[in-house]
Amino acid sequence: MKTPFAQRRRALQAQLAKEKLDYLVVTHPPDWYYLSGFTGESGALLVSRAYAILVTDGRFTVQAREETSGVKIHTQKGSLPESIGKLLLATGKKRVGFDPARVTVAEFRSLKKAAGQSIQWIPAPGLVNSLRMQKDPAELAQMRKAAILAGDVVSGVLKLLKPGVREFEVAGEIEHRMRKRGASGPAFETIVAFGERSALPHARPTAKRLRKNELVVLDLGAILGHYCSDITRTVYVGRAPARIRRWYGAVLEAQAAAIAAVANGVPCGDVDKAARQVLAGHRLEQYFVHSTGHGLGLEVHEDPRVARGQKRRLEPGNVITIEPGVYVEGVGGIRIEDDVVVHANRTEILTRVERDLIEL
Amino acid sequence: MKTPFAQRRRALQAQLAKEKLDYLVVTHPPDWYYLSGFTGESGALLVSRAYAILVTDGRFTVQAREETSGVKIHTQKGSLPESIGKLLLATGKKRVGFDPARVTVAEFRSLKKAAGQSIQWIPAPGLVNSLRMQKDPAELAQMRKAAILAGDVVSGVLKLLKPGVREFEVAGEIEHRMRKRGASGPAFETIVAFGERSALPHARPTAKRLRKNELVVLDLGAILGHYCSDITRTVYVGRAPARIRRWYGAVLEAQAAAIAAVANGVPCGDVDKAARQVLAGHRLEQYFVHSTGHGLGLEVHEDPRVARGQKRRLEPGNVITIEPGVYVEGVGGIRIEDDVVVHANRTEILTRVERDLIEL
Repeated sequence: MKTPFAQRRRALQAQLAKEKLDYLVVTHPPDWYYLSGFTGESGALLVSRAYAILVTDGRFTVQAREETSGVKIHTQKGSLPESIGKLLLATGKKRVGFDPARVTVAEFRSLKKAAGQSIQWIPAPGLVNSLRMQKDPAELAQMRKAAILAGDVVSGVLKLLKPGVREFEVAGEIEHRMRKRGASGPAFETIVAFGERSALPHARPTAKRLRKNELVVLDLGAILGHYCSDITRTVYVGRAPARIRRWYGAVLEAQAAAIAAVANGVPCGDVDKAARQVLAGHRLEQYFVHSTGHGLGLEVHEDPRVARGQKRRLEPGNVITIEPGVYVEGVGGIRIEDDVVVHANRTEILTRVERDLIEL
Repeated sequence: MKTPFAQRRRALQAQLAKEKLDYLVVTHPPDWYYLSGFTGESGALLVSRAYAILVTDGRFTVQAREETSGVKIHTQKGSLPESIGKLLLATGKKRVGFDPARVTVAEFRSLKKAAGQSIQWIPAPGLVNSLRMQKDPAELAQMRKAAILAGDVVSGVLKLLKPGVREFEVAGEIEHRMRKRGASGPAFETIVAFGERSALPHARPTAKRLRKNELVVLDLGAILGHYCSDITRTVYVGRAPARIRRWYGAVLEAQAAAIAAVANGVPCGDVDKAARQVLAGHRLEQYFVHSTGHGLGLEVHEDPRVARGQKRRLEPGNVITIEPGVYVEGVGGIRIEDDVVVHANRTEILTRVERDLIEL
């Protein structure tokens, strides 16, 4: 069976040669999945310029053999950092890279102790991130499906938004529908926020009941075939007052401006700025309390960040969310979020759900 | 409103005095929830001997004010480690503790840079863990409810185990039922494994259909009011062959021995050994590829570990799982798991579901 994993390892191995590293220790689960196909919950992948060793414990060795190919499986003895350190020591290699954002201070100390003095530890941040940011056609195909699924669920649950329903009931129904459509689960804790609670950008669903004349924010995503989607829609239950319509219009305009700014070669900070400038024009900038978006893929938050001042330039294969919002304490919040792919000469929107204000 | 959070901070502050720390930087979300009630997704709690400051970003400041009391809220500017470092620098305090298992190498570097040379960073592992291990009566009451919920769901879904049903359908139904009963979600990815797949201790649900004469492992838990439960039952669809009955009996006996070994003051390693010795007596020890159990609480895996050689002694208020299993590649696996509370003079089993082999 042809898998993309060996090809990705080769791309990483080319990076190792460039960085003059003998090994890279890959400790972050989505990173090792990306490079090997292994979906276990504990382990690490040691990638040398010529081969790869997956270290995991007895709970996962059978699974590791079934899920991977072209990777040596090593069953850990003692703690994971100890096992990795001893393996590295045995190789006699010198320059070992690690991602400082993915290794704790305690793990690093154990690694160093087990591997001995002869190894030189080289901080090599984001080597796997850089590969993961450039989604290949098969990944994009999967992400299209995950985005359509999330969009269909958003559209479908609107009819549940009747006065009296509770936030957590709607959240439960959303996650159940994602599962029924084949999702392995939600990409993050589903947000369903009614009325004033919608002013909390990351509200957790509560027992609050929906009332007439309230805003509703639905922010959800599905994991389908390992890839995440992420979509937000805000609707109004009743006829929206003028102020709400004005805010909604401003957020929609900000989102359109940010999406229009997305293009191969554009710094991420410019996309953020495009949204922020529109909201500033409406004197709403102070109510936009987060970044414009984030990368999306095997994880719901990954590189690139679409935030103020980010200099990293968009590249073909990047998938990002564009999700400006305004949040007014005591009144409510409005956020509109879609998933966008950067191509060489165009931008593709993965999430296809009506964006104009819906009044229920 | 009386909350347990202030009391927990006082207990931690007594520890700071004992360890001669001016501050502890608490970076792990369940730890800061435990100490403040804040449920946001990003932040850190700085606890001095006299007060506490919650640092978080604009997405969560309103929520932080609503959820906490007696805690100063500081909105971060720049990255989180930078904000923490600058705050510490401004206090002029010297000895700052951190948990090396909860801070990455990259975060630690940023913290040190922002806080400047005058601060002495003291590794202080597990200070909050030690408090969290000793569940108070209100926590235990919540965990009883979470355990009953999970047990009811296990019992209820057995009737869905008819030939033809798919693993992921059963997993979806389990999570939907937990939600309907008020759970905020599953405590971990629900395991539903049929036939040979049950030999994978942490199998992810697939499209595999149940057939007659297969083992079924169901391992699930609910988060209810922030606290986790975790239960496993193994059933047989059809009349179990003699070999399966023998293995099942051995696992049940191992579990009973481990539960019987649980007592205030007993080293965790002795509990693990009790299960392992029974399986060794049945010549099944080599098929028991994981630890006997783990602590349970705000997280599904927390201290204490119930594993080989663990010297830490059980204390009143500890809640642990006891979950021996045997896994035979190509045949199947059997695991039986319950949640157990250590009291001063007795052991309480939270999960109350039939443990004898059920044949469907």
